[in-house]
Amino acid sequence: MRMVDIIENKRDGRELSTEEIQFFINGYTDGSIPDYQASALMMAIFFQGMTEKERADLTLAMVQSGDQIDLSKIEGIKVDKHSTGGVGDTTTLVLGPLVAALDVPVAKMSGRGLGHTGGTIDKLESVKGFHVEIENQEFIDLVNKNKVAVIGQSGNLTPADKKLYALRDVTATVDSIPLIAASIMSKKIAAGADAIVLDVKTGAGAFMKTLDDSRELAKAMVRIGNNVGRNTMAVISDMSQPLGYAIGNALEVKEAIDTLKGEGPEDLTELCLTLGSHMVYLAKKANTLKEAREKLQGVINDGTALKAFKTFLSSQGGDASIVDDPSRLPQAKYIVELEAKEDGYVSELVADEIGTAAMLLGAGRATKESVIDLAVGLVLRKKIGDQVKKGESLVTIYSNFEDVEEVKTKLYENITISNEKVAAPVLIHEEITE
Amino acid sequence: MRMVDIIENKRDGRELSTEEIQFFINGYTDGSIPDYQASALMMAIFFQGMTEKERADLTLAMVQSGDQIDLSKIEGIKVDKHSTGGVGDTTTLVLGPLVAALDVPVAKMSGRGLGHTGGTIDKLESVKGFHVEIENQEFIDLVNKNKVAVIGQSGNLTPADKKLYALRDVTATVDSIPLIAASIMSKKIAAGADAIVLDVKTGAGAFMKTLDDSRELAKAMVRIGNNVGRNTMAVISDMSQPLGYAIGNALEVKEAIDTLKGEGPEDLTELCLTLGSHMVYLAKKANTLKEAREKLQGVINDGTALKAFKTFLSSQGGDASIVDDPSRLPQAKYIVELEAKEDGYVSELVADEIGTAAMLLGAGRATKESVIDLAVGLVLRKKIGDQVKKGESLVTIYSNFEDVEEVKTKLYENITISNEKVAAPVLIHEEITE
Repeated sequence: MRMVDIIENKRDGRELSTEEIQFFINGYTDGSIPDYQASALMMAIFFQGMTEKERADLTLAMVQSGDQIDLSKIEGIKVDKHSTGGVGDTTTLVLGPLVAALDVPVAKMSGRGLGHTGGTIDKLESVKGFHVEIENQEFIDLVNKNKVAVIGQSGNLTPADKKLYALRDVTATVDSIPLIAASIMSKKIAAGADAIVLDVKTGAGAFMKTLDDSRELAKAMVRIGNNVGRNTMAVISDMSQPLGYAIGNALEVKEAIDTLKGEGPEDLTELCLTLGSHMVYLAKKANTLKEAREKLQGVINDGTALKAFKTFLSSQGGDASIVDDPSRLPQAKYIVELEAKEDGYVSELVADEIGTAAMLLGAGRATKESVIDLAVGLVLRKKIGDQVKKGESLVTIYSNFEDVEEVKTKLYENITISNEKVAAPVLIHEEITE
Repeated sequence: MRMVDIIENKRDGRELSTEEIQFFINGYTDGSIPDYQASALMMAIFFQGMTEKERADLTLAMVQSGDQIDLSKIEGIKVDKHSTGGVGDTTTLVLGPLVAALDVPVAKMSGRGLGHTGGTIDKLESVKGFHVEIENQEFIDLVNKNKVAVIGQSGNLTPADKKLYALRDVTATVDSIPLIAASIMSKKIAAGADAIVLDVKTGAGAFMKTLDDSRELAKAMVRIGNNVGRNTMAVISDMSQPLGYAIGNALEVKEAIDTLKGEGPEDLTELCLTLGSHMVYLAKKANTLKEAREKLQGVINDGTALKAFKTFLSSQGGDASIVDDPSRLPQAKYIVELEAKEDGYVSELVADEIGTAAMLLGAGRATKESVIDLAVGLVLRKKIGDQVKKGESLVTIYSNFEDVEEVKTKLYENITISNEKVAAPVLIHEEITE
């Protein structure tokens, strides 16, 4: 088998065989196939696409290129939730304890990553003492005992995907639905999930800006998952404006606590209930989605979900007293209100730009070396559709430096107030199960 | 400027600017742009094509990536002839002295290369003493004095093209008309030609198998040439069967002598007169193509062309007595006739396979290290359309080894005899001037 023939086959629109895809992934991982042949293949795939069979084969070949996490010692159906990424997305912090309270095991492997705010681990580290550097055995024991635990990424997971992603980034071959779908799914599958719930964001703050693209990606991932034997479904949710109110690490922990108490933002609560219902249903802890939702609402109302959060934090060394007294979370020195300059209705809150404003405060990483300021960030006081009066606060800015003019300018530029009444955007666009 | 943006622009169908193409070619030549970005761009070009302006810009950028030959000390308009390559193509050997006899300067830089027979230099080296290792100054003096000289390839011509071609070869990006056209034209332009006559072959023995592809390539090259200020035209000629009768180095020298005497094969003679007329016309040594052809016929009839060949050979150390006594050329030990197995008409002579049969005898190079046997090869006794009787010779095999069964089998497989009368293929399909 020769790599040049594989490239030519794809270039000319022929379906690659399982063996050809394995030959490529194995050779690329071990270095016998050079970057310049891989990038030519990536570009040919950009133009020719991949069949359903090719996508499943590519995903499995990438899974097999490295270590795979063995979660078989954890009782029950392990359901993983994955979000394609957005601004102010606090769902993971809420969903872990929420579904754990219904005995759905959540064995979360998480990273830090770049972005407007930190990753799940960064956010949790706003809780004093909390740490994710635990042994595999302890991780498994904790999930069996508490139904939820988080461990830092370790091991050599999907090295082929890491190498390919770095290559695609510099060869203009990132924007290919089959490649994005295979990349995400290979990581989830290598991490050991039995079933997967995907939260595919759509809108200005999302990787996929249009509903059509989001739907295509969602379908691609759901089909890969189901084709390789993992029960998979996707929710397409709005990311035209940030989710919830808080954008920032400690601020989002506080918002998660509010939500687990039943006092969270409406959209964040609704999305958590939707995603959570699917997780509970896929884990076979409810017979219908309706029953799952009722049970979730139940553990919020009776305090079980909040209790699960406390147990989770203290089991990994965290100071659980922050749940009852959030003022023990890192606090910013300066709190500044962004006042509305006119009366009207909020008609636009450009999610990615508002995320960038949070990053200007130090809430996120621009490069791997950036140090995150866990205390800072933004809390929206109005969302799209809300009425606002001149002088009322649109956003509260939490900063550790006094001069926030640049942040204010950025925010004003990306918040539009209209004279006309505006409807809130649709939160859940579609649910895709096949 | 970032290479990844250039790739994305081409990927999305936007025209690259002159600056972007120069940035790519300069960076790729000096190594600051890696192979993996170049191959992604090549694949994007395969799918998106290139505009006329981009093709001219790419050609010039590759010309400027290395040395350029200065032929300004040679009087007159230097017209170069280029063939896209075929089997038994003896035109260069004939055309040099033929147009030189009409004072058209031919300053030929030539290589050895791989193929069914050797390159022009190999063929000429069947003449004892002939050599192309001459100084630039001597080369220029010889062209000024005799109007024709050949020099071996030297200097660092179009290094960007060499590097890109090697990359395209292993990334399935060879088959792109704009890239092929720019590659050929950059070499011709760097070699200093004022005007260019292209012989684009079409058919089984050619790089382009169909007339449509050949026409597209011819038009692409003619436009590049004219867009960068070199008067360029192309002839599309048949390569479904080998050109002329001889396939082999010394055998082709002998055939060139016959043709210069007016006793050559009909198709080779006709193609030389057609290409030669255009060369004479572009060199402004005739006012019309008709006048040019009459003048060429004249120098064949009166012996001036043959005399020019003798002078050319002896000026570069060659034994010109071979012209009057071709038995002084290298001779093969074994001469074997391939006899027709039935009566009928020759309907097929698959050019590339017959070329491969000549290579089996040792007439060409399979790898750079192969040693060519200058004496051996094939002489066709029949061409498509010719009547043949059982037992008559179809091909004479000139070999230095006794057992030529493999060669005979190959030839029988690729020569078809039909009961029906068959027309000879059209030799000159089209002439393209814009």
